[in-house]
Amino acid sequence: MIKSYLLAPGPTPVPPEVLTALAKPVIHHRTPQFGAVLAKVQQGLRELFGTTEDVLILASSGTGAMEGSVTNLCSPGDEVIVVNGGKFGERWTKICQTYGITVREIRVEWGRAVAWQMVETALKEFPKARAVYMQASETSTCALHPVAKIAELTRHTDTLLVVDGITAVGVLPMPMDQLGIDVLVTGSQKALMLPPGLAFVALSPRAWAATEQAKLPRFYFDFKREKKGVAEKSTAWTPAISLINGLDVALDMMRTEGWDNLYARHDRCARATRAGVRALGLSLLAAESPSPAATAVNLPTNVDGSALFKYLRDKMQVTFAGGQDQLKGKIIRLSHLGYVGAFDVVVGLSALELALTHFGAKVDLGAGVGAAEKILGEGLPARG
Amino acid sequence: MIKSYLLAPGPTPVPPEVLTALAKPVIHHRTPQFGAVLAKVQQGLRELFGTTEDVLILASSGTGAMEGSVTNLCSPGDEVIVVNGGKFGERWTKICQTYGITVREIRVEWGRAVAWQMVETALKEFPKARAVYMQASETSTCALHPVAKIAELTRHTDTLLVVDGITAVGVLPMPMDQLGIDVLVTGSQKALMLPPGLAFVALSPRAWAATEQAKLPRFYFDFKREKKGVAEKSTAWTPAISLINGLDVALDMMRTEGWDNLYARHDRCARATRAGVRALGLSLLAAESPSPAATAVNLPTNVDGSALFKYLRDKMQVTFAGGQDQLKGKIIRLSHLGYVGAFDVVVGLSALELALTHFGAKVDLGAGVGAAEKILGEGLPARG
Repeated sequence: MIKSYLLAPGPTPVPPEVLTALAKPVIHHRTPQFGAVLAKVQQGLRELFGTTEDVLILASSGTGAMEGSVTNLCSPGDEVIVVNGGKFGERWTKICQTYGITVREIRVEWGRAVAWQMVETALKEFPKARAVYMQASETSTCALHPVAKIAELTRHTDTLLVVDGITAVGVLPMPMDQLGIDVLVTGSQKALMLPPGLAFVALSPRAWAATEQAKLPRFYFDFKREKKGVAEKSTAWTPAISLINGLDVALDMMRTEGWDNLYARHDRCARATRAGVRALGLSLLAAESPSPAATAVNLPTNVDGSALFKYLRDKMQVTFAGGQDQLKGKIIRLSHLGYVGAFDVVVGLSALELALTHFGAKVDLGAGVGAAEKILGEGLPARG
Repeated sequence: MIKSYLLAPGPTPVPPEVLTALAKPVIHHRTPQFGAVLAKVQQGLRELFGTTEDVLILASSGTGAMEGSVTNLCSPGDEVIVVNGGKFGERWTKICQTYGITVREIRVEWGRAVAWQMVETALKEFPKARAVYMQASETSTCALHPVAKIAELTRHTDTLLVVDGITAVGVLPMPMDQLGIDVLVTGSQKALMLPPGLAFVALSPRAWAATEQAKLPRFYFDFKREKKGVAEKSTAWTPAISLINGLDVALDMMRTEGWDNLYARHDRCARATRAGVRALGLSLLAAESPSPAATAVNLPTNVDGSALFKYLRDKMQVTFAGGQDQLKGKIIRLSHLGYVGAFDVVVGLSALELALTHFGAKVDLGAGVGAAEKILGEGLPARG
């Protein structure tokens, strides 16, 4: 075991081309040269977000952009709806509560997607709700929520739709203008194939209008100030220069692959992983609406899941993600987002086969990989 | 297919730790600082070669050290024995003939190891032969020659044993002093996990004595001049400074893994590859005496081997080696030497399964990987 494999749903592997860009000399950020880089990545980010609006680049983790999506839209005493189906739904609630917002929570069983009808009911029950806060892909359970369907509901109300797309943007199409998403957030260390350190957020015209009324305090995460920065090919505060150099290369790689190919690759790797897991006789936590970003596998009850996870990480050098809270020790999450190709799926399943066997589970060695290969083969280019 | 995999028997993958060392600033080579690096790598190289003699570091490919192993030992009109069982055996013959040496060739069918009895016969027939030139691992056929057994013969004669260990040193134990090898050669781009550009050669005391008598012309590859360099913690000519910085890190990695573990890993990966290939219903070219460095697979006759090789390389981005000369299009060579671990074997076999299926061969997807996993599992560390 001489090599390390990072197969967790963030941070994700960074391509050598991006690592090389990170090592470029740091130039000053208040220069035409860096302004040109910012203008170029702005174009790529707008394609990625499917928007004609500005995409703000923040030097923070995704949580910073989540917090800003509350403080820039809401005022003290406001009421919001939160879809809480896992650790990241819970985070929306915690942020809102920190700022004294009244949260109307839609609780979703971990592993399930929210039923859009529940959001419809909540919107009728709380018509003054400033916004619906939700995830597109709930990373803690690997469930995919029906964002498009919910956007169809919110666009006909005065309630904004704020989507944490941290493990969705760049994984599946999230054209925010077309769908009617009002605020879309992501982070650098997921599909964007960068180290952690950048967050991205874009707002619809009506979300920008809402920022004018929002009275919650904000300074570092003041979106209006950042929007002024974009107009000036700059940023409000000192940007994370090296990461933005890396972003430039990462976006070039994504555009070169082509957005459709990129989404098809994620979908294929996800389907292959699920098929592999099922072929090993294991079940999926989010079987009904699985995320294309990562797959949560229910572990056999006779296997100590925490020990298995640690063995894979520390002895086999294959880092998956474990379960959180009530799922701790019960699931393992195999990621397939970002700089992840067919043979990463193969390695992930092979590692799982080997580790489960080592832990005494009855596993047909090669069966998971074989089932995955049937689907991965779809992605093979034509001969000649 | 977004990632590239280099699974050819040289150049081999370079670890990130070594790549980082290659990017270090170039310091001047006639300094105490660089002298300290040379002294340190000298220690590591002696462990690797199993010798108390100096290991010379040449700025050349392995072929340079092969040529030097002729010009520093022989004189015009000399007679030598060459074991020719593939492209690299043939190279010894060509070098010797270039310098007017009479070559007594032992021809070995491609894919087979030389029978030591044939060398015994040749030594008796040509008692004045200056040296036996051979490979340890014949990379073109992936056959392993019985070096230890042949060294038992030559050590009791006046004929030197010169071994091209280019895909053997660092793959399997080659303790030259203990075995009685007189000259041992290797290159940087194999088990040493470096880019191409360095060759290494060590000589036994009786080989050093022979250099005093050798009349063939040599200048750049003058071993005696390089030996003087080692004594002065220097090199005769300008050394490849960055590659030697990388060598320092690579040797540290090998020592940290431990020589026994390193050899066991290569052996396990080789056995797993062979088991995987056989489980796919394919046969091995060098079935009787396979090299632990790489595995040559006989392709099904109804598969266009050249097209398969190119498809893997250009469309799947998995670079194996094809066959040379009469084996062109008939075999494919999967490497497992250097910075190659269990999951590289898995990826290699998975790629072969997918490509063969794509080319219409009947392959049980996952069967090769599963058979390999049974052996790779042996290498798993204990729990807890």
